[in-house]
Amino acid sequence: MKRGVVVTHIGRADPREVAALQQAGAATVHEAQSRLGLLASYMRPIYSGAAIAGSAITVLVPPSDNWMLHVAVEQCRAGDVLVVAPTSPCEDGYFGELLATSLAARGVRGLIIDAGCRDVRVLKEMNFPVWSKAVSAQGTVKETLGSVNVPVACAQQIVHPGDVIVADDDGVVVVPLATVSRVAEAAQARLAKEEKTHSVLASGTLGLDYYGMRDKLSEKGLRYVGSIEEA
Amino acid sequence: MKRGVVVTHIGRADPREVAALQQAGAATVHEAQSRLGLLASYMRPIYSGAAIAGSAITVLVPPSDNWMLHVAVEQCRAGDVLVVAPTSPCEDGYFGELLATSLAARGVRGLIIDAGCRDVRVLKEMNFPVWSKAVSAQGTVKETLGSVNVPVACAQQIVHPGDVIVADDDGVVVVPLATVSRVAEAAQARLAKEEKTHSVLASGTLGLDYYGMRDKLSEKGLRYVGSIEEA
Amino acid sequence: MKRGVVVTHIGRADPREVAALQQAGAATVHEAQSRLGLLASYMRPIYSGAAIAGSAITVLVPPSDNWMLHVAVEQCRAGDVLVVAPTSPCEDGYFGELLATSLAARGVRGLIIDAGCRDVRVLKEMNFPVWSKAVSAQGTVKETLGSVNVPVACAQQIVHPGDVIVADDDGVVVVPLATVSRVAEAAQARLAKEEKTHSVLASGTLGLDYYGMRDKLSEKGLRYVGSIEEA
Amino acid sequence: MKRGVVVTHIGRADPREVAALQQAGAATVHEAQSRLGLLASYMRPIYSGAAIAGSAITVLVPPSDNWMLHVAVEQCRAGDVLVVAPTSPCEDGYFGELLATSLAARGVRGLIIDAGCRDVRVLKEMNFPVWSKAVSAQGTVKETLGSVNVPVACAQQIVHPGDVIVADDDGVVVVPLATVSRVAEAAQARLAKEEKTHSVLASGTLGLDYYGMRDKLSEKGLRYVGSIEEA
Amino acid sequence: MKRGVVVTHIGRADPREVAALQQAGAATVHEAQSRLGLLASYMRPIYSGAAIAGSAITVLVPPSDNWMLHVAVEQCRAGDVLVVAPTSPCEDGYFGELLATSLAARGVRGLIIDAGCRDVRVLKEMNFPVWSKAVSAQGTVKETLGSVNVPVACAQQIVHPGDVIVADDDGVVVVPLATVSRVAEAAQARLAKEEKTHSVLASGTLGLDYYGMRDKLSEKGLRYVGSIEEA
Amino acid sequence: MKRGVVVTHIGRADPREVAALQQAGAATVHEAQSRLGLLASYMRPIYSGAAIAGSAITVLVPPSDNWMLHVAVEQCRAGDVLVVAPTSPCEDGYFGELLATSLAARGVRGLIIDAGCRDVRVLKEMNFPVWSKAVSAQGTVKETLGSVNVPVACAQQIVHPGDVIVADDDGVVVVPLATVSRVAEAAQARLAKEEKTHSVLASGTLGLDYYGMRDKLSEKGLRYVGSIEEA
Repeated sequence: MKRGVVVTHIGRADPREVAALQQAGAATVHEAQSRLGLLASYMRPIYSGAAIAGSAITVLVPPSDNWMLHVAVEQCRAGDVLVVAPTSPCEDGYFGELLATSLAARGVRGLIIDAGCRDVRVLKEMNFPVWSKAVSAQGTVKETLGSVNVPVACAQQIVHPGDVIVADDDGVVVVPLATVSRVAEAAQARLAKEEKTHSVLASGTLGLDYYGMRDKLSEKGLRYVGSIEEA
Repeated sequence: MKRGVVVTHIGRADPREVAALQQAGAATVHEAQSRLGLLASYMRPIYSGAAIAGSAITVLVPPSDNWMLHVAVEQCRAGDVLVVAPTSPCEDGYFGELLATSLAARGVRGLIIDAGCRDVRVLKEMNFPVWSKAVSAQGTVKETLGSVNVPVACAQQIVHPGDVIVADDDGVVVVPLATVSRVAEAAQARLAKEEKTHSVLASGTLGLDYYGMRDKLSEKGLRYVGSIEEA
Repeated sequence: MKRGVVVTHIGRADPREVAALQQAGAATVHEAQSRLGLLASYMRPIYSGAAIAGSAITVLVPPSDNWMLHVAVEQCRAGDVLVVAPTSPCEDGYFGELLATSLAARGVRGLIIDAGCRDVRVLKEMNFPVWSKAVSAQGTVKETLGSVNVPVACAQQIVHPGDVIVADDDGVVVVPLATVSRVAEAAQARLAKEEKTHSVLASGTLGLDYYGMRDKLSEKGLRYVGSIEEA
Repeated sequence: MKRGVVVTHIGRADPREVAALQQAGAATVHEAQSRLGLLASYMRPIYSGAAIAGSAITVLVPPSDNWMLHVAVEQCRAGDVLVVAPTSPCEDGYFGELLATSLAARGVRGLIIDAGCRDVRVLKEMNFPVWSKAVSAQGTVKETLGSVNVPVACAQQIVHPGDVIVADDDGVVVVPLATVSRVAEAAQARLAKEEKTHSVLASGTLGLDYYGMRDKLSEKGLRYVGSIEEA
Repeated sequence: MKRGVVVTHIGRADPREVAALQQAGAATVHEAQSRLGLLASYMRPIYSGAAIAGSAITVLVPPSDNWMLHVAVEQCRAGDVLVVAPTSPCEDGYFGELLATSLAARGVRGLIIDAGCRDVRVLKEMNFPVWSKAVSAQGTVKETLGSVNVPVACAQQIVHPGDVIVADDDGVVVVPLATVSRVAEAAQARLAKEEKTHSVLASGTLGLDYYGMRDKLSEKGLRYVGSIEEA
Repeated sequence: MKRGVVVTHIGRADPREVAALQQAGAATVHEAQSRLGLLASYMRPIYSGAAIAGSAITVLVPPSDNWMLHVAVEQCRAGDVLVVAPTSPCEDGYFGELLATSLAARGVRGLIIDAGCRDVRVLKEMNFPVWSKAVSAQGTVKETLGSVNVPVACAQQIVHPGDVIVADDDGVVVVPLATVSRVAEAAQARLAKEEKTHSVLASGTLGLDYYGMRDKLSEKGLRYVGSIEEA
């Protein structure tokens, strides 16, 4: 929570583990880390179908001022994801085609912004995915400093630089750098288990039976009655 | 409004009338029943283009707890639509790929949930439509009972088990079971009338003339002036 | 802000300038007029990809009453855009297939409505674009007068009849009639400049260097540190 | 969900049981009926400190049309509470000083309205409490029928005529008529228990000990560490 | 909609008519001008009980930038009301104790701001009323120009400089300068009529009878039935 | 972001500096730390007039589950402030009279909760202040672990255990423990300066002159015109 600071060296996760998290997707990763780290559900993709994972470059920005985004570009490497949080709530369009062009030129995988973005048709054509709080043509000024690569509170979660972001149509999850390896493994294990469960349920077996829920439900007092009058 | 009850026998509408309602669509059905029964407009489809109608299996669920969805699956038959209402407002992701697999295996046509769902990309691939208040990767627990097939208040409308749900890109309408026959007929009559009106208007005839509105407008005091200064 | 008035003669912009504004798009036009005139970001297109510009025919409507839309149709010419503002906030579905058929028959380019619309699947098939606050199957009555071609406050901006509306996936911008020529020129100039900037940034040149930001940032006190501990 | 119907005879609860529910208050009553029946938290009192309970007279109203409120007044008796639900979401001011004067003259205890009210300063002076979704000076028309004393979905709960409404600064709870006796008893029992717990906790005894939570927490895996680094 | 302009001469209404509007209050004035001119209901007073009317000094402000408020102070006279509209939605705290001190020193009656204000405890102690969209401690910068005394769209209504603002616990209404005299008279007439109606209704006479509604209701098809089963 | 952890030893600020921050208030403290650290403006006090500062005891809670609040009580000392953040958005009533009784018995100064609370009339009588996102009678379960005294994202800001919370009618600000001394001093300096400015402005001197803004405004292009036509 310092203004006017750019941290130039950050840790990044092993690309194979990032790939494993991306494959698992936001919902499975969220489950795999005990249902922690999900950004608020108002963070929606500007187009459907995108699915990414990458190391967070974080940016703290003043309201209606996107100056620090230009500073942040230089700190990005291939495989990174830009994560932008305003110091006070704002839905203006901090980000558009030109910044996306710069990020794409550096191999950045996408943008997570707890504010607005614009040029959404072009971003879709560029295949540059954005998860944002709003779409807004409202531009911003370049007057006040923020910071790059400091911890930020983005859409109700803490994101540290270097944490791994997993984003798809279900939303955005942050995985702390120190736990990436463990979470990636757990997510892959869940995937395998879900696949098996999927085929059982597809065959018509009830979850009630497959998960063995009937006894516990009965114990809690669940009653089956023929009609509402008997309830 | 009872907890811990599953009602196993409910009435269902005639499939031909359900089909007639589906063909008419949500907006026309809503008009055909005197503009009653529309769920709140925050209920949006997770992908566009789906249009269904079917008999409601209702589920009352605690906040952040999807246990009763597993119980409800067993009560569903081909042609049904699952209708889920939380006892207090919640946007968590109660529903995803595995539950959809179970429902699809039983021929259920879709889900209406006044809360969140997840795995939306897969649900679209499965062609399993959902109308929900939110998309959220946030999972839920399985600790507290709710009920199945009791009347629920879902997105500002009362839904009884067996009522017919009509849902498409315009929203979700509930038709009480006792009135399905009458509403289906009225909806078909409206469709026919709208088709005729459509061709008249497409030819350039003004609604002002076709509907004969000019006299009543004049009577209410409508004035035509050349410029705002004359107003 | 008068009720019961229809103004029949309004100014309209030069079609070539309207075309120039359409080509520039909402975000660029907004920048070109000093970041003024953007409608609230809750105004979203009912389908993505549409991009229009045209002269505003304005309609002031009572809550839940779409009578004046029928009156407004007659005032529309080819190239116009209908702009609808309720006198008190409302999300009901004022507009659907039949009104769109009438407008399309007159060459109207689209609808901007600070309320709800319906029949969205059909509107998409008709290629008739709408930017609205909500999608709602809820119909409206025809009992109370409003006005046509008076100034309205629509989604947080003032729109006068004859002003040019520019709308695309980024939102909706209003350009006052008297400034259309100047704004169109400025927008074209921005487009040319953005194109050039685009190719520079695409080559990997940093905005920090291209825009010459480093000195001003340093002057404001921006510091680069190796790690957060040094901050 | 019928339009144009006024039901003139409804059941009402025993006044002593209504009084017992009022004394317990919304939060305790909600607990006493298994956490069911709470209206959405956007229903707020127009002034703080009011606390009522009474039999529901329900009113289904069209958007922006308060005609049925005038019809409903006649159906009210001393001790009743008016419960108003619009057929589609609306925040207009359906209710003000004059209707409150009529209701007060009949001994009605208050209003629950899933829409707007006005004249709030006068209502406070009259000591006529209202729980509403909004305060709005926007008036309504008298053109379209609704119904009186039919079941309504009000702020996400089903209310039947004659159900008991309990409302205070914590919100609004509905108790189904058939369960009033049982819930009133359970609420009184909770009150007694809470009073005892209150004095234990006030003396400094920890809830962890008083409720005997330590074992279950430990079993679930709760760990105490000296510093975050040990976590 | 021009930036960088301060209009120094504006018309103002007759103080006696302003006083008459203040006495009538927002709800009655709104009725008296055909239910037009009500600002959005999210505009709430920071404390209850204040009731003002005065001539609007309008201020168009950039997002998160309150520079123009300082410019506007100089244009204010005793009896004025400051009306502030941001060019894009913003909830930051543009206004607090110091600006209020300046305005109070000039006899300004209050502030209407479609954004945030702060120092609300002190403003209440000063008896300086504010109607705002939000309360927020977030300060703003002083970098970008807006305008003073140009027409603005504030909370969904157009306000011209010199228009009369009427604000109380029910909300905020704008009365166009040219119609002040007529509206003030109509509002006083309504007040007299409401007073008479009040005493009739207080005596227990039903509105159904006093307003003579029964025939029209019957004609529209309203039916009275003994029980819901007969409906 | 770990589940199931209670950190028992945390740093706390010097009580004199906490007192200095409390005296300065949220708005001044926010300015004094470069406009950083303000919680979202939806965090509102349940009654007006309270003003506190204290050391944060942080609690991470599952949605609709308040078990960890009972655990957190034991970690509180006199002068602390409880700060509660749910792992996913929730407005249920986690907190009421009984927990407040326990906290009050330990000398805790208040509660900051990014969710709901209840028993608000009693809390006001107890003089136990709460800043919350909602008031809701909806109770919660005790089934799932969270954590105590880990960093949390609360209402869009990061709060570490031991950070100082400053809360009053303007909102809630967090001051990082390491900077408390510096911020307290800066806040006191601002207070002194504001006091002086206050008396200058109260005397009628314009801010334009006192702050010396006229030159910079003119340089940016501000023009004064007699009427809007000259603009």
